[in-house]
Amino acid sequence: MPHKIAILGASGYTGAELVRLIATHPAMEIAALAANSKAGQSMAQVFPHLRHLDLPDLVTVGDIDFAGIDLCFCALPHATSQAVIRELPGDLRIVDLSADFRLRDPEDYARWYGNAHAAPECQAEAVYGLTEFYREEIRAARLVAGTGCNAATGQYALRPLIAAGLVDLDDIVIDLKTGVSGAGRALKENLLHAELSEGTHAYSAGGTHRHLAEFDQEFTRVAGRKVEVQFTPHLLPANRGILATVYVKGEAEAAHAALAAAYAEEAFVHVLPFGALPSTRHVRGSNFCHLGVVGDRRPGRTVVVAALDNLTKGSSGQALQNANLMLDEDETTGLTLAPVFP
Amino acid sequence: MPHKIAILGASGYTGAELVRLIATHPAMEIAALAANSKAGQSMAQVFPHLRHLDLPDLVTVGDIDFAGIDLCFCALPHATSQAVIRELPGDLRIVDLSADFRLRDPEDYARWYGNAHAAPECQAEAVYGLTEFYREEIRAARLVAGTGCNAATGQYALRPLIAAGLVDLDDIVIDLKTGVSGAGRALKENLLHAELSEGTHAYSAGGTHRHLAEFDQEFTRVAGRKVEVQFTPHLLPANRGILATVYVKGEAEAAHAALAAAYAEEAFVHVLPFGALPSTRHVRGSNFCHLGVVGDRRPGRTVVVAALDNLTKGSSGQALQNANLMLDEDETTGLTLAPVFP
Amino acid sequence: MPHKIAILGASGYTGAELVRLIATHPAMEIAALAANSKAGQSMAQVFPHLRHLDLPDLVTVGDIDFAGIDLCFCALPHATSQAVIRELPGDLRIVDLSADFRLRDPEDYARWYGNAHAAPECQAEAVYGLTEFYREEIRAARLVAGTGCNAATGQYALRPLIAAGLVDLDDIVIDLKTGVSGAGRALKENLLHAELSEGTHAYSAGGTHRHLAEFDQEFTRVAGRKVEVQFTPHLLPANRGILATVYVKGEAEAAHAALAAAYAEEAFVHVLPFGALPSTRHVRGSNFCHLGVVGDRRPGRTVVVAALDNLTKGSSGQALQNANLMLDEDETTGLTLAPVFP
Amino acid sequence: MPHKIAILGASGYTGAELVRLIATHPAMEIAALAANSKAGQSMAQVFPHLRHLDLPDLVTVGDIDFAGIDLCFCALPHATSQAVIRELPGDLRIVDLSADFRLRDPEDYARWYGNAHAAPECQAEAVYGLTEFYREEIRAARLVAGTGCNAATGQYALRPLIAAGLVDLDDIVIDLKTGVSGAGRALKENLLHAELSEGTHAYSAGGTHRHLAEFDQEFTRVAGRKVEVQFTPHLLPANRGILATVYVKGEAEAAHAALAAAYAEEAFVHVLPFGALPSTRHVRGSNFCHLGVVGDRRPGRTVVVAALDNLTKGSSGQALQNANLMLDEDETTGLTLAPVFP
Repeated sequence: MPHKIAILGASGYTGAELVRLIATHPAMEIAALAANSKAGQSMAQVFPHLRHLDLPDLVTVGDIDFAGIDLCFCALPHATSQAVIRELPGDLRIVDLSADFRLRDPEDYARWYGNAHAAPECQAEAVYGLTEFYREEIRAARLVAGTGCNAATGQYALRPLIAAGLVDLDDIVIDLKTGVSGAGRALKENLLHAELSEGTHAYSAGGTHRHLAEFDQEFTRVAGRKVEVQFTPHLLPANRGILATVYVKGEAEAAHAALAAAYAEEAFVHVLPFGALPSTRHVRGSNFCHLGVVGDRRPGRTVVVAALDNLTKGSSGQALQNANLMLDEDETTGLTLAPVFP
Repeated sequence: MPHKIAILGASGYTGAELVRLIATHPAMEIAALAANSKAGQSMAQVFPHLRHLDLPDLVTVGDIDFAGIDLCFCALPHATSQAVIRELPGDLRIVDLSADFRLRDPEDYARWYGNAHAAPECQAEAVYGLTEFYREEIRAARLVAGTGCNAATGQYALRPLIAAGLVDLDDIVIDLKTGVSGAGRALKENLLHAELSEGTHAYSAGGTHRHLAEFDQEFTRVAGRKVEVQFTPHLLPANRGILATVYVKGEAEAAHAALAAAYAEEAFVHVLPFGALPSTRHVRGSNFCHLGVVGDRRPGRTVVVAALDNLTKGSSGQALQNANLMLDEDETTGLTLAPVFP
Repeated sequence: MPHKIAILGASGYTGAELVRLIATHPAMEIAALAANSKAGQSMAQVFPHLRHLDLPDLVTVGDIDFAGIDLCFCALPHATSQAVIRELPGDLRIVDLSADFRLRDPEDYARWYGNAHAAPECQAEAVYGLTEFYREEIRAARLVAGTGCNAATGQYALRPLIAAGLVDLDDIVIDLKTGVSGAGRALKENLLHAELSEGTHAYSAGGTHRHLAEFDQEFTRVAGRKVEVQFTPHLLPANRGILATVYVKGEAEAAHAALAAAYAEEAFVHVLPFGALPSTRHVRGSNFCHLGVVGDRRPGRTVVVAALDNLTKGSSGQALQNANLMLDEDETTGLTLAPVFP
Repeated sequence: MPHKIAILGASGYTGAELVRLIATHPAMEIAALAANSKAGQSMAQVFPHLRHLDLPDLVTVGDIDFAGIDLCFCALPHATSQAVIRELPGDLRIVDLSADFRLRDPEDYARWYGNAHAAPECQAEAVYGLTEFYREEIRAARLVAGTGCNAATGQYALRPLIAAGLVDLDDIVIDLKTGVSGAGRALKENLLHAELSEGTHAYSAGGTHRHLAEFDQEFTRVAGRKVEVQFTPHLLPANRGILATVYVKGEAEAAHAALAAAYAEEAFVHVLPFGALPSTRHVRGSNFCHLGVVGDRRPGRTVVVAALDNLTKGSSGQALQNANLMLDEDETTGLTLAPVFP
C-alpha cells in the first residue's frame, strides 16, 4: 500500500515540484494538498501543468486529518513553517523545505532571521537534510530540515575538500548565480520579467545572505574550527538552475580526486572529468548535481564549479530523497528523471 | 526481455529527446546510437545532460548490426533519412522523425521539397504517424512517418472540427508560434541567441512553409474535399513549445463539444474548460497537448488554441508513443512525465 | 529657451521612457517629475539606468507649480489619469498616455472600462494621438490622448487599406504578440519572470481586450461603416516589442502599394519591400514601425505584419512626437535614435 | 565639414554598433562600409534595424579609396585585422576593435594567440585604447587598439585600487558574467539560442582566456611589479552586458573612495553610493560603466562589481570615444544616449 503523503504550501513552486516528482513515485500517494490562500481550488487551477494528474483539491492545513498521513512535506514560507509545524501531531514525520529548522543554534537563527524561533523544541530534533552527508540521521529522523538551495550547491563543492584538509579555510570565495524560481512565486518588483530578464546583478553581497548561516554552521562542523566563506549570489535571467563558482587555495588534482572519491557511490552527485565544466542547462528539471574542477595557471589555486536545479536537487528533489530514506524506500525512487535539454 | 532499440541521428535534439524518454521506459533498451559525424564519441560528450545514463557510444549507421534490433528510430535530417532508410533491412520496424515519408503522393513530395523522392517504395508502406488518428494503422506498420511538429499542433485543433463539419473549410487561419529547438541543432545565423532572443518575427508566410503539405493532405482527406488553410509560423524566443492560434468560422460551443468528445479517451490530448486558454509553459517537457476554445464577440467565429512541446508531443514523444503501439506495449509507457514548470 | 516639461507618473515604464527620450531633446527641459508613491526619492533610486541625468527629484502631483510648465505628460494608470487631469489648470497642454481619453463616446468608455468617465468635459476636447493620421488636430490640441500600443500597431497595418477600400471589412483578423513591458511595472503573478519566460499564451481572446474599443472606433470612422475586427493578443517572453500579424482579404500587391504610398513621407513608419517581413528586434528601443506585406498562396488573401516597440512608438515615443507638434518643434526631434540590436 | 569615416567589418555586431552610434554624431559622416563576404549588399539587408539610415552599400576593403577617409574603424576578426591594417595607407588614422594590437610585446602576442604577429611594425605605434587611462596618448595616436570587453570591465574595477596600493596584488579574483554578443555573429554551436538560453556555465576557466594577457600587461604596468589575477568568465543568457564581480583584499571604504576619486571627472564611469550594486540592465545600449563597492563581513575583504555593455563601452562606444579624441571632437559626442531599460 502506498505511503499517504500530505503537502502543505502546495501553491508555491516547491510544492508544485513535489507534486511533479511524486506523480511518478510508485510507492507514494498524495492524500492531501494544503494552501490556505487558495483552499477550495483545484491544483489544475493553480498550476495548469499538473492538470493531467488526479489530485485532491486544495484545502487549509486545519482541514487535514493527519491521522492517515504517513509523511508530510511542509513547503510553507519561512517563519510560517515553524508556526504550523509546532501545531502538527508530535509523531508526524515531516520534511520541511523552509529555512526554519536548518540552524541548530537558536541564537544563530535569531541573529540571521531577526526573530526568536517559535518552535525551539522542534528545532532540537531536526536533522539537517543534505542527504549525502546526513543519510543515517535522516533515515531515523522525525523532522528533516531541507537545506537552502544555494547552501546545498556550495556544500557539494566544498565539504569533501574541507573534510580532507585540502583547502585554505580562510580563503574560500563562492560566487553563485541563481535562477529566479528560488525566490518563489512572490509578488516582488525585482522578480518581474521586465526587471529581471536580459541581464544580471549581484545581491546580498558582503556577507549578508542568510544561506551564509548554513555555510558557517556546516563548514565549521566539518572543519572542526570556525570557517567563514565569502559568498556573493547573482540573479540569473533563467527560471531554474544554480551555478556556484568556488575559488579555493589548494591543489586542483587532489581536489578533483577527493570529490570523485567522496561521490563515487552517489546516484545524484557526479564529478566531471578533470578540466570539464558543468552547466545549469544540463541538470535542469533533474535531481543531479554536476561538479567540475579546474586548476588555475597559478599553482595551488583551484576553481570548483557546481551546478544543480534549485527546485529539484536544491529543494523538492532533495526533500523527496530524504522522504524515501525516512519511509525505507529506495533513495532514488521518483528521482531518476533525466534533465530536460534544451 | 526488453525491446532492443536503435536511434539513428542521436546527436540532434530529437535524438537526445528520444534517449531522455526511453531512459524511463521499462521495456526498452537502447542498443545502438548512431551519429556519423560524431561516431566514436560518448553520448555524454555530445549531450552532457545524459551523462548519468549507461549508453552505448556513438557509431556510424553502417556499424550497427540491425539483426538484433527490434525497432529503429530514425532522427536524421530530411533527405538524408530516405537515403538511409532505403538501405536498412526490409523487415526492420522503423519510426522516422524526418519529413521524408509524410506525404503519400510522391508528386506532392517533389513539389514541396524540390527533389524526387529517393525511396518511393518505402513511401508506399509508410503510415502517417499522428497517433490519435492512425492508431490501428500504426500498430501494424513497418514504417511510421512522424508528423511535422507544427502540422501536428494544427491538426489537434482542427481535425475533429473538420470531421464533424463544424467549420467553414475555406476560411481557416493558423497563426503559429514555435520555439527554436524545432529548427534543430543547425548552425544558422537566425538561430543564434543574439539574433533570436528578445523578440519575434513571422517566417515562411503566405503559404510557403512545408508543413502546409501535411495540412493539405490531411485536411483534404478528413473533409473529403480540397482544403487549403492559411498558415503563418513565427519564431518564439523560447527553446520548446508550439502555440497554434486557429481562427475558424463556426460555433464555439459546438467546436468545444466536438473536441472534448474526440479526445475524451485520449491520454495526452486534453481539452480545457470552455473559455480557458493553454500555455506552452504548461506542457513543456511533456507529451501533453492542451486545447482551448473561445467564442468571438461576433457570433459564428471561434478561436481554438493548441499548445504542445515540439520536441516531445510534436516529435520524439509522438515517435515513442507510436513505437509503443508497434511493439504492443501500453501506448503511454515512458510518456507520463509531468511538464516542467516553471 | 527650452520648453519646461512635467511628467506625472514618472515611476512607471512609460514615464522612464519619456525621460530617456527627452534627455536627448535640445528644446525640452524636464522641470518636474511626479510619482505620488515615491515622492521624495531621486529618479536614480527608482530607475538606476537614468542616474547619469541631472533630473529633479520625484514629488507629488500636488507639489508641482504648473504655472511654469509648458507641457505636461501624464503617464498615470488608467482611471487615475482622468481624476488627476480634471484638476489640472484648464489651459495646461497635456499629452496623456493612459486609456482615459481615447474613446470619443463616453458610453463606449463606460461599456469597455466598466465605470462612468470622471472627466467627460476633458474628453470632449481630447484628440486621438495617432500622429500620422491626426497631425493637424494634434498640433492644435490642448489634450492629446495617446493610443493603446496594440491599437496603434494594428492601425498602422490597416488604416490605409481600409481607407482605400482594399480589404473585406467583415473579415479582418489581428493576431498580435506583445512584450511584457506593455503591462507596466505592476505586481501581478502573470508578469513574474518565472511565469512568463520560456513560453507564450493567448489572453483576452474572443473580443474582450479593451484595445478593441479603439479599433472599432477608428476603423468604423475610416470606413464610414461599422467595422469589427477579430483580435487575439499573446504575451511574448520579451520585454519590448509588438508584432501584429494581420489577415485580410484583398490583393497583396495593391495592399503593399497603398501602404507604401500612405507612409511615403513619414519619418517613422517604413514599408519593407514586398514579401519582406519585419521583426520586433529591429525596432527595439526606437520610434520606428516596420510594415511587411505578403500574398497568400490563395489569391485575394494577404498578410500584413507590423512591428514596433510598445514603449516607444507604441507609447512614449508617440507621446513625444505629439508634444513636438504641439510645441511647434520638428516632429522628429529626440526620436531618431536607431534601434538597439542585438 | 564632417569627418569622413570608414568602417571595415561592417557586417558584424561591433560594426553595426558603430553605425548606430555614429548615426547620431553631428561631426561624422559614414563614407564607406566594407564587409568582404557581403559586398554588394545594402546595410539594410544585413542589419534591418539600420534601414532608416542613408548609408553607403557594403564594398570590399579593396574598393575603398582611403584618400578621402579621415578615420577608419577596423571591426574585423582577430588575425584578419593585422593582415588588413598593414596594407592600409601609413598615415591613415585607425581605431582597431580586434585583439591584434592590444599586447605591446610581440612575444606575449605569439604566446597567447598562437601565431607570430603579422604586423609588428604597426604594433609598435599602437596605443592601448582604454580611454580614461590613455587619453593623451590616444589623442595623438595614429593607431589605437580597442581593449577586450572583459578586460575593460575588470580594469575599471581595479586600476585605481592597484595604482593606490589598496589591494593585495597576489589575491585578486575576477568572476565575470558576459552576454553573448561579445562572441560575435559567428556560427558556433554554443552560441545557438537552444544551447545558451535558460542557464549559465563557466568557460576558459583556470587562466586560459586571452583577455588575461591584457590584465597581466596592464596591471603589471600599473603596479610596477608582476600581477597575475584569477579570472573566470561565464556565459549569460542575455545579448548584451558584462558584470565583473571582483574579490580583493583591502579596505572597502578606502576602495570606494579611491574609485570615486579616480572617476570623479569622468563622463562615462560612475561609482554608485557605497554598498549599492550595479546591474547590466541599467547600462544596456549605453556607453556607461557602473561600479559598486561592498565590504565583506570579514574585515579587509572587499567586493567591487563593474557593469557595462560589451558592445558599447566594451567595444564600439569606446572606439568612438577614442575617435573623438583623435579627431579633436568633444569626447562624449554621439555617446550620451541613455541606457534602454527595460
